[in-house]
Amino acid sequence: MDGKGPVGFVGLGIMGGAMARRLVDAGHRVAVFNRDAKKAEPLVAAGARRAASPADAAQGAEIVITMVTDSKAAEEVILGGDGVVRGAAKGTVVVDMSTIAPAASRRIGGALRAKGIGFLDAPVTGMEFRARDGTLSILVGGERDDLERARGVLSILGNRVTHFGPQGAGQIAKACNQVLCAVNMVGIVEALHLARLSGLDPATLVEALVPGAGGSWALERFGPQIVKGDFNPGGRIALMLKDLGIIEETASALGLPVEGAMVAKRYFADSRAHGEVDLGTQAMYKSVERAIRKG
Amino acid sequence: MDGKGPVGFVGLGIMGGAMARRLVDAGHRVAVFNRDAKKAEPLVAAGARRAASPADAAQGAEIVITMVTDSKAAEEVILGGDGVVRGAAKGTVVVDMSTIAPAASRRIGGALRAKGIGFLDAPVTGMEFRARDGTLSILVGGERDDLERARGVLSILGNRVTHFGPQGAGQIAKACNQVLCAVNMVGIVEALHLARLSGLDPATLVEALVPGAGGSWALERFGPQIVKGDFNPGGRIALMLKDLGIIEETASALGLPVEGAMVAKRYFADSRAHGEVDLGTQAMYKSVERAIRKG
Amino acid sequence: MDGKGPVGFVGLGIMGGAMARRLVDAGHRVAVFNRDAKKAEPLVAAGARRAASPADAAQGAEIVITMVTDSKAAEEVILGGDGVVRGAAKGTVVVDMSTIAPAASRRIGGALRAKGIGFLDAPVTGMEFRARDGTLSILVGGERDDLERARGVLSILGNRVTHFGPQGAGQIAKACNQVLCAVNMVGIVEALHLARLSGLDPATLVEALVPGAGGSWALERFGPQIVKGDFNPGGRIALMLKDLGIIEETASALGLPVEGAMVAKRYFADSRAHGEVDLGTQAMYKSVERAIRKG
Amino acid sequence: MDGKGPVGFVGLGIMGGAMARRLVDAGHRVAVFNRDAKKAEPLVAAGARRAASPADAAQGAEIVITMVTDSKAAEEVILGGDGVVRGAAKGTVVVDMSTIAPAASRRIGGALRAKGIGFLDAPVTGMEFRARDGTLSILVGGERDDLERARGVLSILGNRVTHFGPQGAGQIAKACNQVLCAVNMVGIVEALHLARLSGLDPATLVEALVPGAGGSWALERFGPQIVKGDFNPGGRIALMLKDLGIIEETASALGLPVEGAMVAKRYFADSRAHGEVDLGTQAMYKSVERAIRKG
Repeated sequence: MDGKGPVGFVGLGIMGGAMARRLVDAGHRVAVFNRDAKKAEPLVAAGARRAASPADAAQGAEIVITMVTDSKAAEEVILGGDGVVRGAAKGTVVVDMSTIAPAASRRIGGALRAKGIGFLDAPVTGMEFRARDGTLSILVGGERDDLERARGVLSILGNRVTHFGPQGAGQIAKACNQVLCAVNMVGIVEALHLARLSGLDPATLVEALVPGAGGSWALERFGPQIVKGDFNPGGRIALMLKDLGIIEETASALGLPVEGAMVAKRYFADSRAHGEVDLGTQAMYKSVERAIRKG
Repeated sequence: MDGKGPVGFVGLGIMGGAMARRLVDAGHRVAVFNRDAKKAEPLVAAGARRAASPADAAQGAEIVITMVTDSKAAEEVILGGDGVVRGAAKGTVVVDMSTIAPAASRRIGGALRAKGIGFLDAPVTGMEFRARDGTLSILVGGERDDLERARGVLSILGNRVTHFGPQGAGQIAKACNQVLCAVNMVGIVEALHLARLSGLDPATLVEALVPGAGGSWALERFGPQIVKGDFNPGGRIALMLKDLGIIEETASALGLPVEGAMVAKRYFADSRAHGEVDLGTQAMYKSVERAIRKG
Repeated sequence: MDGKGPVGFVGLGIMGGAMARRLVDAGHRVAVFNRDAKKAEPLVAAGARRAASPADAAQGAEIVITMVTDSKAAEEVILGGDGVVRGAAKGTVVVDMSTIAPAASRRIGGALRAKGIGFLDAPVTGMEFRARDGTLSILVGGERDDLERARGVLSILGNRVTHFGPQGAGQIAKACNQVLCAVNMVGIVEALHLARLSGLDPATLVEALVPGAGGSWALERFGPQIVKGDFNPGGRIALMLKDLGIIEETASALGLPVEGAMVAKRYFADSRAHGEVDLGTQAMYKSVERAIRKG
Repeated sequence: MDGKGPVGFVGLGIMGGAMARRLVDAGHRVAVFNRDAKKAEPLVAAGARRAASPADAAQGAEIVITMVTDSKAAEEVILGGDGVVRGAAKGTVVVDMSTIAPAASRRIGGALRAKGIGFLDAPVTGMEFRARDGTLSILVGGERDDLERARGVLSILGNRVTHFGPQGAGQIAKACNQVLCAVNMVGIVEALHLARLSGLDPATLVEALVPGAGGSWALERFGPQIVKGDFNPGGRIALMLKDLGIIEETASALGLPVEGAMVAKRYFADSRAHGEVDLGTQAMYKSVERAIRKG
């Protein structure tokens, strides 16, 4: 493969759409599928083939990428009745870039391998603009041979491709990333409320602390948005709650307490109870605000 | 004042010693005092005057800086029997750069002001090498006039001087910084154990996640040290525990739950129970390790 | 003004469009104008009023923002026949967020002030996604009173508003930023060619050097794109060339040699000669490649 | 080797001394040598053996590290009359962590290999505090087998060990790093003079630009020092001039113009002419200041 072979792409949300577009622009023949067909239109306009199903997207593809919202959706588009498995030839490599449970990833990998189809779990970190620039970080689990065959395509999507080990290892690495994101947010919202309730100007605080020992990507990015009351996503609470469920289950099976992540989960559960799952994760601020004891 | 007036400096630990040295090198006449007199020697060799007491260090000084370990020590060296207050003339500005309770800071300020002496609470962020380079971040509470009189001296010690409001506001800002440091560490050690128990190489994980959305100063700095089993400080757990006590008390008075910071406090309390208070804060990793359920 | 007063917005390119959108979403009544009217459509759909001219956009506005490509365009939309000056009432503040020559900015400010209209030069740093998130850095020159009146609106667009001094000072600060951007790029492309010609893998080099003493935002962002041969903008060479012209003229008037910036200008001039002005600034790499002596 | 075998260490300057200390503290038996024997004292006090010569330091060692100032010193301590080569047994790996010319590194490697001794060129990036923390970045050229044998020792010194290819490749990577450092400094000093001559406050400028597209490690670190007139090293101009000589020679042999790096070299040559080679590289600011045309 010269890295310009045919690619199937299933799942054209904000991230998936931007990623598929890079592959088209790089000269790949790309067949795209999305349940809501309207999202395929800009890609078809740019030269992609519109596929009728995940199976159809996999027809003739050397690499098939899936980018969907959760374990259930991944299993369905890959192993379901009109799933990728029905269209993919032996020797194809399926790359699931969704964030799903490591166990689900291992199940999918086993089912595909039984049919001679390769599989990588390859979730990503980085937001929409990194997807558009091709500077995502890609966290990979699976067999090294499959990775080498997919590397040409992955290198168009990201600038950092890290192989962590066997099937599921990429999802574990992503779970670790989400632990960091969720727990860093807890520190940020606690610090900002502490400042506000004490009469300090939170904007001044963010500016003073970003470059220091308490600094983080999240403080630089979300601190100013919280100060403005801007709770647009970024990363939706609904997705983070899903990830924290995966984290809780994985850590629990290992006997590992993840108390910091569980603090985050409780705050986000409160966000859900208040109908805020479509806000960005920085809306944890509102949840902590509700927890302040009055009087 | 031309910014080169006489300065008194009390408290010559790792940070204080490096800060006093910058003032000497910048051409100030500096009188230094430390309970353990041996720490004054390199400064005296560099041209400082050895003072016999905090009161003596304050004799003739326009600015007196104190840099000690806790509220009690600050009150003692400033208001005690041979304290700064006994040597300082009216119009002197005392700048306490220790990290202490906001309430203690307000008490000290009130007592000094009653005698016509100015006072700033001005704790810092940044470690030893920032102290040596003069690139600390200085978080200031107190009256703006006092700050303007001390600014020449402070600008030799730090490159970022932020005024947060009235007496105690600098300590609140520092408490917010410590919330971030403590909670970020919780995320780091949970993520690293999750990786390790799942069979991932933690060094690879740190390298992959540092530049992304989960990245923080602490991950970049302490992640590699944890991976190597290097628990030397950096910042000692003993000091962080003191700070978390201040945070708990301050937040409690405001009705604010700081659950993330309290997770950190519980882990560090376990470090104390295991005789690890002189290790760096990254040794929280050992505490979480002890909490893993076996079998 | 409660920060929600009527705003005129002239210039709806990638940056301007994203900025105007934030104002609409924040609840301001916004009148928008763009020479190519099609770019106004998404804003009108979101609730903005379509203005027939810059003068019309300024009708009834408390703040008028202009975001155009160069000095000539700024003078035209503000001072021209159907320019902002024809519609703006006394007491309005015009905020030019374009990057233009400091001298042009001073001329515009003088003309407006003669009619009782305030003026700020307020160019920004940060790319499209920062415009969408409202996390631009805004560099301001002009009178402090005018800034205070515009601050509510500016704080929706950026999280860092810095006042540098009188009219033109914001443009000077932006010029300094562009010196850094241009010269940093020189180092990046020289280092990457040195690595490549010596047989090193440039991707490995970028990853190894980003976190160290040679690291910069530009290396992290553009290094991976250069390695992939991705020269899409980001920031267009055409605009950078315009900025380097401003820098050359400004520095020359001050007697200051800016040899590093002039190296960048020569490389970009070669890009222009090869029809590459619509590529991103990282395409300086191609220019240096052409300069390598063969054989 | 269990990673705790005997180590020889030659060259105990600021960096070498801190690195040797980490090896002692990690439990290695370390034999140390420095021309000026006084610098060996703290290490001997910490448990190292004082060697009488480089050859003696190599006696019985599995790994010998050299950390000296230039190509000539490296050739002398390794290949000279009482050099490492006289004491090292077959199978030893010599790791030269100095920054020297790639060609000199290849010569040394060839001479050692002819005697059955392994050799790595392994220069580092990161300053003294990274040496003390063991968080250097180590850039390696040489055979992979030799690297694997030295990895245990290197992992105590740095947290990022990157293999770039055959002998000399580590030195090339370091040269690329120095191109970035030197050229970034050009941009910084040009921008700061432009600001100052235009009447802007340089401290405000640095603070506003550090977090943006013009930001770099060097701007964050050296910007505030320049603003204060603090020209203490950090990295000495003398060493940077040596590195720029290597860069000029290497690039010239490849036909590659490195105009940005040569601008830096001219400014530093002026520093040398004014007796400033022992100042930090940020003192390029003084050189540009002298180049401003008066009147």
